[in-house]
Amino acid sequence: MSPRTIGVTEVALRDAHQSLMATRMALEDMVDACADIDQAGFWSVECWGGATYDACIRFLNEDPWQRLRTFRELMPNSRLQMLLRGQNLLGYRHYEDTVVERFVEKSAENGMDVFRVFDALNDPRNMAHAMAAVKKVGKHAQGTICYTISPLHTTEGYIALAGQLLDMGAESLALKDMAALLQPQPAYDIVRGIKETYGEDTQVNVHCHSTTGVTLVSLMKAIEAGADVVDTAISSMSLGPGHNPTESLVAMLEGTEYTTDLDMERLLRVRDHFAAVRPKYAEFESATLVDTNIFSSQIPGGMLSNMESQLRAQGAGDRIREVMAEVPLVKADAGHPPLVTPSSQIVGTQAVFNVLMGRYKVLTGEFADLMLGYYGECLGERNPEVVEIAKAQTKKEPITQRPADLLQPEWDHLVEEASKLDGFDGSDTDVLTYAMFPSVAPGFLANRDEGPKNVGKTPEQLQAEASSSSDAGRAVQGPITYKVSLGGRENTVTVERA
Amino acid sequence: MSPRTIGVTEVALRDAHQSLMATRMALEDMVDACADIDQAGFWSVECWGGATYDACIRFLNEDPWQRLRTFRELMPNSRLQMLLRGQNLLGYRHYEDTVVERFVEKSAENGMDVFRVFDALNDPRNMAHAMAAVKKVGKHAQGTICYTISPLHTTEGYIALAGQLLDMGAESLALKDMAALLQPQPAYDIVRGIKETYGEDTQVNVHCHSTTGVTLVSLMKAIEAGADVVDTAISSMSLGPGHNPTESLVAMLEGTEYTTDLDMERLLRVRDHFAAVRPKYAEFESATLVDTNIFSSQIPGGMLSNMESQLRAQGAGDRIREVMAEVPLVKADAGHPPLVTPSSQIVGTQAVFNVLMGRYKVLTGEFADLMLGYYGECLGERNPEVVEIAKAQTKKEPITQRPADLLQPEWDHLVEEASKLDGFDGSDTDVLTYAMFPSVAPGFLANRDEGPKNVGKTPEQLQAEASSSSDAGRAVQGPITYKVSLGGRENTVTVERA
Repeated sequence: MSPRTIGVTEVALRDAHQSLMATRMALEDMVDACADIDQAGFWSVECWGGATYDACIRFLNEDPWQRLRTFRELMPNSRLQMLLRGQNLLGYRHYEDTVVERFVEKSAENGMDVFRVFDALNDPRNMAHAMAAVKKVGKHAQGTICYTISPLHTTEGYIALAGQLLDMGAESLALKDMAALLQPQPAYDIVRGIKETYGEDTQVNVHCHSTTGVTLVSLMKAIEAGADVVDTAISSMSLGPGHNPTESLVAMLEGTEYTTDLDMERLLRVRDHFAAVRPKYAEFESATLVDTNIFSSQIPGGMLSNMESQLRAQGAGDRIREVMAEVPLVKADAGHPPLVTPSSQIVGTQAVFNVLMGRYKVLTGEFADLMLGYYGECLGERNPEVVEIAKAQTKKEPITQRPADLLQPEWDHLVEEASKLDGFDGSDTDVLTYAMFPSVAPGFLANRDEGPKNVGKTPEQLQAEASSSSDAGRAVQGPITYKVSLGGRENTVTVERA
Repeated sequence: MSPRTIGVTEVALRDAHQSLMATRMALEDMVDACADIDQAGFWSVECWGGATYDACIRFLNEDPWQRLRTFRELMPNSRLQMLLRGQNLLGYRHYEDTVVERFVEKSAENGMDVFRVFDALNDPRNMAHAMAAVKKVGKHAQGTICYTISPLHTTEGYIALAGQLLDMGAESLALKDMAALLQPQPAYDIVRGIKETYGEDTQVNVHCHSTTGVTLVSLMKAIEAGADVVDTAISSMSLGPGHNPTESLVAMLEGTEYTTDLDMERLLRVRDHFAAVRPKYAEFESATLVDTNIFSSQIPGGMLSNMESQLRAQGAGDRIREVMAEVPLVKADAGHPPLVTPSSQIVGTQAVFNVLMGRYKVLTGEFADLMLGYYGECLGERNPEVVEIAKAQTKKEPITQRPADLLQPEWDHLVEEASKLDGFDGSDTDVLTYAMFPSVAPGFLANRDEGPKNVGKTPEQLQAEASSSSDAGRAVQGPITYKVSLGGRENTVTVERA
């Protein structure tokens, strides 16, 4: 029997640098790898969405739409894939449906093929319209299950959610494990359950981070259970808070009943390209190689460091254990949301508030909104007492409808506001940039003409750093002012490198 | 059905720091973790042998026997485990059988329980006497299969070798994957084959490095095939050229038909201990996070960098591709030895010689010995033409017997030579130190009284390094007084930070 071919989504151009180096990689550091990526045989190339849009305009002075068009041009044979936060698009609030449609249309027009649509609370209503919009433009709508662990989250529940996504017309399903929590057995059980319930032809893609060191095994088990496509990153852009290495996946399957169609020669060239690029962004990398705390605390690493820095800012750095004990209570009161952006920040900050000020003495605005349904529904019931506190504090009523149903048509207003900005070029894509990042867009549009700014180090800077471990390199660059006592007389001398 | 318990060997105290930081960790940086390691529930604790003996006397001014006794005292509940290079003991030549016996006796007396006995060529004759010596003192003799890939190495061959080791009285078998070459399917096939051929009760331990990023999956498959014990390193001493993380193994098995008896609370304390220690030895670490070259070249990373530096030393750094193409030919001519220490160096250096000077124009002494049988037998036949060249160059005859059979009794002579050394304390263990490291032992014994030297950085040095990354931190703090000659007149200048 010939082995079954497993599709692979390469994430080096999006999630890998988002996870490893705060989404800072400039397009110019990617273009030379595109031809090899395009020809390597991937099922898709994730290269847009997530935090890249924000980072492009906030840090890199890059037009994200130009980035997308460039990828389209350089990778004509590939399915381009993006991560889309459902009704939030790539921003941080819910958008009215017309805006969602416009965004999807423009993304498709500019070259996007596969839209991985997710919602942090796994609320299907927050994904439905985006998925419908994707289908309307004839592109691939992938419905997403965010994986988490809680007393309410069960294999059966995930299988049921898969059914809802398929009912909405999902062409494929993504099992998305942002926190590297997906252990091998549940990976197997969920994929197998989906296949047995909805048919072996149901396409299942599996996305794991590698933070806990165990998820390549989870991919193996998912494949044994029938997974069709898995996500990996080329080895030089892998591991730590990122993903499992693409070449390791290829090696993992050699000799088994499964194979990939990847071209190892091209993979190694892609690897060598990013091996040279990665050091440029070293200052954005975390030191985390493997983080096993989450197995006991079930608190993702990023959330923990966030809470620690909040506590330190309040001079209460020693109370982290209390906060860690508070998190599961707050999470339960909120109905067990998955702890991912933004719910991880919302729950974590409330846990810090509870410890510092007394339980629910003060709610953050976001936590109150979460308790009142303004982010959507979770699997669990929200604690009615805390809902009452939220009502009292905010003077808002809880809602049960889809949050976006509260919104008035807003496209015309967004066009009007965007039109007032310096540098606005009249395009719908500029309106979308303004819509999603109203505080960042004005500066970006005004300065767009200056062109991309690469925040990575240059080869010369890297060279200088390397040599700074030598005596010559340690010379003061200055200027630094010294008090110099010379012949008994004190002078002020300023030194800088000649 | 209750899950099957998988034993775990923790390698943090031996192979982890050998692989990650050139075996430089001082005993004093380990002692505080021992109580937790001892109580965590490991099948065994690898803590001695390999390169640790050499490093102790060469770099750390530590008596390796004192280290062993300390471990014995601090971990009274644990099986202590060592890696023993068969007839080579921990040195770099073959020893006469009496010396092997004496070494094993002394190791057992000082606290060793499990002896993992291996030979770089997988020649059982080089393991037999050491294993017999272990059994004679009533300790656990583990026979080892070094895993490699070649046209001659087959699953059936490894199973047959396992049988030879069992016939020698091996109490358990180790499948040892030094180069992270063991992919999941062969891991499964070899372990399953051993179990089916020699009985399900045959204890199989699996040792993998993590260099290629794929071997935690191999451990999973080995476990599914029936492996009894697997080797891991606590996460803060894991990955890269080291091993898979212990906590990740625990998480991998949760919910499956397998479990470990490890105490996660204690593991996390061990982890935190070494997380604090590891930065002290950063200068000894390689930058390798994952190395996937070996999948295509089948040349281990350490061997490649070795050949590269040899070429550069000859001003021929640009010829590495020729050398990489030469390696498989040299390896085949030598009968396909596994490429591990010392065979990897011997084959690699000969490949460099062949490229620089013409094929087999000059043989290294070691390669000639390998071709003439002085290291033992490989799986394949050696190329008779190259054997002739080796004979002609060295004026030595090829041998077919066990190399150690050529040796005369040497214990008395070793005692006599050791007795002449300053600082020799009259013990057999000092004789063994001299026997294995005749050029290093004199200096070590003479200076032993000075006590251990920790080559890791102190907290103060780490602090200073951290602050030196800023320009301000690099400034002279002073006061420092200089003599400055200015316009022919000498002045005294004192500088301090203003």
